[in-house]
Amino acid sequence: QKSDKVLRHVVMFKFKDTATPAQIKSVEDAFRKLPTQIKEIKGYEWGTNNSPEGLAQGFTHCFFLTFNSEADRAIYLPHPDHKAFGKVLGPYLDKVLVVDYWTQK
Amino acid sequence: QKSDKVLRHVVMFKFKDTATPAQIKSVEDAFRKLPTQIKEIKGYEWGTNNSPEGLAQGFTHCFFLTFNSEADRAIYLPHPDHKAFGKVLGPYLDKVLVVDYWTQK
Repeated sequence: QKSDKVLRHVVMFKFKDTATPAQIKSVEDAFRKLPTQIKEIKGYEWGTNNSPEGLAQGFTHCFFLTFNSEADRAIYLPHPDHKAFGKVLGPYLDKVLVVDYWTQK
Repeated sequence: QKSDKVLRHVVMFKFKDTATPAQIKSVEDAFRKLPTQIKEIKGYEWGTNNSPEGLAQGFTHCFFLTFNSEADRAIYLPHPDHKAFGKVLGPYLDKVLVVDYWTQK
């Protein structure tokens, strides 16, 4: 456990062009539910890209989660509710990017 | 100005294979200095990827900045100190990804 540092889990999605707004919303709602189902998630926020720089490489959604330890992350990743979320996401997903990091100032 | 929402600026770098640890550190140090040079940056943290999922697409570094408004972001992007940082980064950069978002819960 590294003092005041926390472990961030940054997840980005690019959805298929065929995904409808309703289908995308079902993924957003399912992801938003995860912190209520998996207590190891200590922080959660998300949003859709509005960068004017044009460097998002097609990613539209960013989900920003916080864990207190790599052990907690190791509980999250195989968790049944996380797997169930993956099934909701799967049919609509074009690209996913995941970067995790211990916070530094 | 959207109430308690803040504007996140998520920047990821993949460095060239030829970039040395010292060169990469010079970029980290230059980025870390920006919040002292550009007051519109309200929050700053960063870290290097340790995700076990293998979905980082080569990105090793994530820098997570916070602005209070899109107007503040519009001051940051063309700011001379930000441009100067770009010059430090340029020779070593292979890939960059930028996604910004207004925070939602």
